[in-house]
Amino acid sequence: MQCTFVEVSVDSDFSIHNLPYGVCSCGPDEPAHVAVAIGDYALDMARLARLGLFEDIGGLDASGVFSKPYLNDFMALGRPVWQAVRHRLQDFLSNDKNAVRVKLSMGDVSVATKLDKVQMHLPAQIGDYTDFYASREHATNVGAMFRGKDNALMPNWTHLPVGYHGRASSIVVSGTPLHRPCGQRRPDASKPPVFGPSVRLDYELEMAFFVGPGNQLGTPLTAEQAEERIFGVVLMNDWSARDIQAWEYVPLGPFLGKSFGTSISPWVVTMDALEPFRVPQPLQSPEPLPYLCDTSGRDGGYDIALQVEIKPADTDQFFTLTRSNLKYMYWTLRQQLVHHAIGGCNMRPGDLCGTGTISGPTQESFGSMLELSWSGQNDICLGDSGIRRKFIEDGDVIRISGLCQGDGFRVGFGQCTGCILPATTKIETV
Amino acid sequence: MQCTFVEVSVDSDFSIHNLPYGVCSCGPDEPAHVAVAIGDYALDMARLARLGLFEDIGGLDASGVFSKPYLNDFMALGRPVWQAVRHRLQDFLSNDKNAVRVKLSMGDVSVATKLDKVQMHLPAQIGDYTDFYASREHATNVGAMFRGKDNALMPNWTHLPVGYHGRASSIVVSGTPLHRPCGQRRPDASKPPVFGPSVRLDYELEMAFFVGPGNQLGTPLTAEQAEERIFGVVLMNDWSARDIQAWEYVPLGPFLGKSFGTSISPWVVTMDALEPFRVPQPLQSPEPLPYLCDTSGRDGGYDIALQVEIKPADTDQFFTLTRSNLKYMYWTLRQQLVHHAIGGCNMRPGDLCGTGTISGPTQESFGSMLELSWSGQNDICLGDSGIRRKFIEDGDVIRISGLCQGDGFRVGFGQCTGCILPATTKIETV
Repeated sequence: MQCTFVEVSVDSDFSIHNLPYGVCSCGPDEPAHVAVAIGDYALDMARLARLGLFEDIGGLDASGVFSKPYLNDFMALGRPVWQAVRHRLQDFLSNDKNAVRVKLSMGDVSVATKLDKVQMHLPAQIGDYTDFYASREHATNVGAMFRGKDNALMPNWTHLPVGYHGRASSIVVSGTPLHRPCGQRRPDASKPPVFGPSVRLDYELEMAFFVGPGNQLGTPLTAEQAEERIFGVVLMNDWSARDIQAWEYVPLGPFLGKSFGTSISPWVVTMDALEPFRVPQPLQSPEPLPYLCDTSGRDGGYDIALQVEIKPADTDQFFTLTRSNLKYMYWTLRQQLVHHAIGGCNMRPGDLCGTGTISGPTQESFGSMLELSWSGQNDICLGDSGIRRKFIEDGDVIRISGLCQGDGFRVGFGQCTGCILPATTKIETV
Repeated sequence: MQCTFVEVSVDSDFSIHNLPYGVCSCGPDEPAHVAVAIGDYALDMARLARLGLFEDIGGLDASGVFSKPYLNDFMALGRPVWQAVRHRLQDFLSNDKNAVRVKLSMGDVSVATKLDKVQMHLPAQIGDYTDFYASREHATNVGAMFRGKDNALMPNWTHLPVGYHGRASSIVVSGTPLHRPCGQRRPDASKPPVFGPSVRLDYELEMAFFVGPGNQLGTPLTAEQAEERIFGVVLMNDWSARDIQAWEYVPLGPFLGKSFGTSISPWVVTMDALEPFRVPQPLQSPEPLPYLCDTSGRDGGYDIALQVEIKPADTDQFFTLTRSNLKYMYWTLRQQLVHHAIGGCNMRPGDLCGTGTISGPTQESFGSMLELSWSGQNDICLGDSGIRRKFIEDGDVIRISGLCQGDGFRVGFGQCTGCILPATTKIETV
């Protein structure tokens, strides 16, 4: 299937097989609305709805949900509606005889704006944000650093997807700069803690899924239900101040070491677009408890190639830090959602669940500088530039990208970028 | 000052010195709106606004903010507006010559509904919910149980208010029943975990504050700013499944052991109402880092007597479990808020911050059954009834109340109640 409406190059992330959803505005005074990316363009879904493209799709008030400055209402509608809209869009984009296409060819209404002319916003109002810890390699690396190789994985890790609640208010869309956080850290364990800017600022390569219809409080989800209630996936950088986190996190988990900001990519790639890229998940041993098992026979993993690059302030060049893949992840997305709801916790449309850092088996696939520099012991060399890093420095830009390579087409995630600005708060001297 | 508008008995929680805010509806088809409690009545703030009571208060679109089914918009306006409304209400309630009172006496418009006729809702749309761990006695008790008396407090505890992100979606208003959660627990450490209903279900006696105007991402608050940005306080029961929590919480903190439900009282008592009940906070040693110190000279503690009672399913009687007081809390509310924002995390109007379990120095002041039964080692005797508990059983109602006793008047919190229903999910046998 090819798009005949706009030109889509074979190396575009946004082929007709992708059709990711986002929220954008086309000018400073223009209202934000739902959009779909195709090639180099953002399709205005609100305008397409008003032109009647989605008429007769049951259960969809298209003008209503696509005029909103967030995707929550569309996410709430469920998979049959999402699939009907996807098929309608694919027909519109590939079929010159589509009724709305014919109508458009006679008028001067524009429904597509160049991506570099639109302002992207957060795709949803995120009610709750949860972060898992689902990569065995990452958990093993971090555990080995802090507890030694023999006690790297905690006893619970292979039995359940360990997760924790994160801060929803400080999730920002790709491109938003963040200030280096200040906080308490204790560089010398024989002395009191000190206050100041983090000196061990890190990225974490993650992906995150948006919840669709959710569930009522007190009503858990089966694995089969969970599979149908995931709307789509974005790239995520779970920025982490390792020194603040190390001092604060016992016994209740990460807090200010994370809550200064979390970046996500603006385009949500749907599960339907990812369907061709399913792969088996890693072997789970011991076998999980029955509630975590999916009996559908469908593979639970996804083959999504991931890359992290860094651009130091004084260069124009990006250097690769990490090459990883979502397929390495031990606990699948549906297992994360099932586990989250098993105690009765209610999930709402637009809730966001991060995978945790996605590290693979080799050094080049480690998804954080903590792992790449082995807790700051080793320098990370940026190509042949002579520039080195242990952690992020002021002015560094971190860029994450993700890609599913199909046969002659791509389903890509675009980018998740963020620049670290200097700390702004007054620094107490100690 | 006395209320001349409705009768207020001297033992009412809701005197004219209190005037707590809530959100209620007066019938199944009636829209929810903002209300203020006085005596046995809920004052309809939306109707009072339409009658012109709040005209000429600068910065307040009274008809707008009080017609909403949540307090967020009013919380966002800040302390000068809150105080102007408080003074206007006190004049209205105590002064027979108040213009709106005169107008009311001539018409048949009702602005007050008996509290037992209204349906209370959550007072705000809670964007993010954070729970602290601010009682030294509670942290010491729990630490002693799990790590021994000599390592009870972690090294960071006296340097910062330890906190973690909680689940916002499952916060419910007092009176909402909750199902006992199912989940993984590991009763025998030599065997794999099992799945089933929690058998160590507990309450936690807490209070929680709502944030008012908040702060921008990347812009921390000073202690003085934080003091002005707390809107008010509610009672909170942070229900906890100890067995689920114990198995899951390392290393990222509590998750499903808490996320099945958190109950709060419906009436938000403002900081202005609590002003007469300030007391010094406990001595903090070592002295906290400068950002946590308030130089205003105002006491940081509040003398709020707290009580927890239990009513077993087969009785009509409530038995006291805990008598504690907010004044025991080591870290103050403003220190919690300052710390939360010091790394740049943005707080939004309506965000909720819990204190953590409020235990005092004596056995009777322990704020959880975990502490009262010392991790299930001892029976808790319910009065002379012969009924005993180690943890909560199905059908038990837990009721929290809180009270500031003034000279001839009360500033009370009403109640936070919840009944535990049996687990509903299928139980896997192992």
